[in-house]
Amino acid sequence: MSVALRMNDNGRSLLERAQAVIPGGMYGHQDTKLQWPGAPQFFDRGHGPYIWDSEGKRYIDLMCSYGPILHGHHHPAVEAAVMRQMQQADCQNGPAPVMIDLAERFVNVVEHADWAMFMKNGSDATTLALTIARAATKRKKILVAKGAYHGAAPWCTPNMHGIPEEERVHLAYYEYNNIESVEVAIAAADGDVAGIIVSPFRHDAGFDQELVDLRFARHLRTRCDALKALLILDDVRCGFRMAFGSSWEPIGVQPDLSAWSKAIANGYPLAALLGSDKCREAASRVFATGSFWFSAVPMVASMATLDLLASEGGVEQMHDSASAITRGMLDQANSMGLHVSVTGHPTMTYLTFRGENERYWTTKFAAECARLGLYIHPRHNWFVSTAITRELVSEILAITEKAFMAVKKAGAT
Amino acid sequence: MSVALRMNDNGRSLLERAQAVIPGGMYGHQDTKLQWPGAPQFFDRGHGPYIWDSEGKRYIDLMCSYGPILHGHHHPAVEAAVMRQMQQADCQNGPAPVMIDLAERFVNVVEHADWAMFMKNGSDATTLALTIARAATKRKKILVAKGAYHGAAPWCTPNMHGIPEEERVHLAYYEYNNIESVEVAIAAADGDVAGIIVSPFRHDAGFDQELVDLRFARHLRTRCDALKALLILDDVRCGFRMAFGSSWEPIGVQPDLSAWSKAIANGYPLAALLGSDKCREAASRVFATGSFWFSAVPMVASMATLDLLASEGGVEQMHDSASAITRGMLDQANSMGLHVSVTGHPTMTYLTFRGENERYWTTKFAAECARLGLYIHPRHNWFVSTAITRELVSEILAITEKAFMAVKKAGAT
Repeated sequence: MSVALRMNDNGRSLLERAQAVIPGGMYGHQDTKLQWPGAPQFFDRGHGPYIWDSEGKRYIDLMCSYGPILHGHHHPAVEAAVMRQMQQADCQNGPAPVMIDLAERFVNVVEHADWAMFMKNGSDATTLALTIARAATKRKKILVAKGAYHGAAPWCTPNMHGIPEEERVHLAYYEYNNIESVEVAIAAADGDVAGIIVSPFRHDAGFDQELVDLRFARHLRTRCDALKALLILDDVRCGFRMAFGSSWEPIGVQPDLSAWSKAIANGYPLAALLGSDKCREAASRVFATGSFWFSAVPMVASMATLDLLASEGGVEQMHDSASAITRGMLDQANSMGLHVSVTGHPTMTYLTFRGENERYWTTKFAAECARLGLYIHPRHNWFVSTAITRELVSEILAITEKAFMAVKKAGAT
Repeated sequence: MSVALRMNDNGRSLLERAQAVIPGGMYGHQDTKLQWPGAPQFFDRGHGPYIWDSEGKRYIDLMCSYGPILHGHHHPAVEAAVMRQMQQADCQNGPAPVMIDLAERFVNVVEHADWAMFMKNGSDATTLALTIARAATKRKKILVAKGAYHGAAPWCTPNMHGIPEEERVHLAYYEYNNIESVEVAIAAADGDVAGIIVSPFRHDAGFDQELVDLRFARHLRTRCDALKALLILDDVRCGFRMAFGSSWEPIGVQPDLSAWSKAIANGYPLAALLGSDKCREAASRVFATGSFWFSAVPMVASMATLDLLASEGGVEQMHDSASAITRGMLDQANSMGLHVSVTGHPTMTYLTFRGENERYWTTKFAAECARLGLYIHPRHNWFVSTAITRELVSEILAITEKAFMAVKKAGAT
């Protein structure tokens, strides 16, 4: 894998230039230090299911910008809606009327939702959910799954550098899918539980994923009702890949608040917090805002994204192609005697090699896929889009087969 | 002032529809409950110095979307750069190379900056500044001016509903421009001062604004040096309206960290944190990220915005037109015997009537200006853009003159 070698006038590579003016050369979840040596750090272009790095190399995209790209890059229907709105206005002294259209749309599409608020980051939505749960219940404790990612705000960022411990004094931790651990956390909170936040499935970075246990999900709902606490579903990562509605609608468990971002506007910057009437009054009392939260362009992109998903049965299509990919990869690995785990929801799957150290073979496999033109991630779940057609599923599986053969030849078991 | 009466198919107004699906009908700084009865809540269009509300009424815009619009709405040079980038990609699996160009540009333009990080909200930048100051110093206390607005994150949002008091246990408060109060806060922090955050001038919402006292600014710098604490300039609101560089460059006081957003990309969603080498290592250790932080379109918009500002002497032009507006309004008020305060930096001025209760006449004046086609705000500083020409200054002053006459006739003194 070649590093990004594009030179500027002074003959310095992009990576050298980045190192000079960005701390560490790059930061956050897109930092290639989390991938393989030489993973492409900079990208030039995306179109449909394809992306091109800054060296001009093309890949089939199974990361979808870590979630936002739901209908492939630069989908013509989304772009057309965006272009029309851009001729009018984006960031104004107040929202455009499309904000109301979009709030009505979310309320219609998502079963538990009676109202919507919009913002920019997934972290904005999860943080506001905690604030509203606390305002609504006049209590302080929030139950959070150990190791879960709910964003990069001080209360939830996975790295404690510069974060005072008091930021987390009102959090109590449970184990995902472990009812007993929830009860222990509730007891420790001593009557002060404002809410429980939970992801649709366990998608902790770097670990095998785990689908939710139905009894666990129902238990959270029952306990929140009994405690008059609020159940918060963090649908930022999963929203609209598991269901056309909140990701727990297929299992019939309704949260009181749900946080959304990523895929809701096909790459345009938008997050949403949806809530039930139970916490509408509290939501109207808290102060939350941002300079670009009311911009119209991402909202029309979201309308177009939802329209497309509804009219083309996108959730089912993604589920079908994603299931074909995960089944195909498992068959390939099994037939070669390779021991891999393929976990999580098929549309957001994650593949690891069992018994490896520090994701050694998983990283080799991802690097080899990239060399062959398929972009996946060794330490983060992948994302399928509706742009992955049947033909592309075959192309993807042809690449994974070669990549499995290469790592087997190199010693993987 | 007519309310937004545009009806949908069911004959309901926008405001009625918004009330049904958005808590309180609207939230945050663009909520018209902070303005006058009937202030337009929804906007359809912006072009150059003009905006049109959802009823089709046109205004000269002196709020500039609360800051973001620096070169007028839909500036052709910014839009052209945006359109070119949109054909390539926006939100990808990694940044586009323009992220490096933009970081280099900020480092060149802003004197104290050795590195840059980008994010979406001004609150993201100020919050990250605190985290980096704490990581760099391994201390916890941050000094903040009482009543200052540094964003809507839990540590700084002006309304405490749903915010546990522990969020602010490591903040110590001083009075803006009051050196003694800074010393009291430092003493109270007992050797644990990580940093001092300060706005370029005192721009608290609803109050007369106050420019910074040079001795005060220098004192903060001296004290941070002595304590080995970091000086954080919150340039989110003021950045690029007071100087082509950080807003304290004209007075020669350099911060260690500066937070930016609002005007840096002419309305496209972007924030930036700039820092000196002193805290580069700490910045590379903290974890901060967001789904849309690395999107390319707002970054090319920022490049174009800075290019325009540099090539057209935009800061000087805004200062000239803004000074003509503030001087003109003061002359008008004086000649009519009206007692008004016109405070703050001219490009972000704020006008109030002295001796009034609850901004009564200030609100009447803003409503009258709006009726006559000029959009200002009774509880927030205004914003001038480079789109305000000499001719528009005359038009603006013709409107303010009529508005002064109207409120005088109604009883203002």
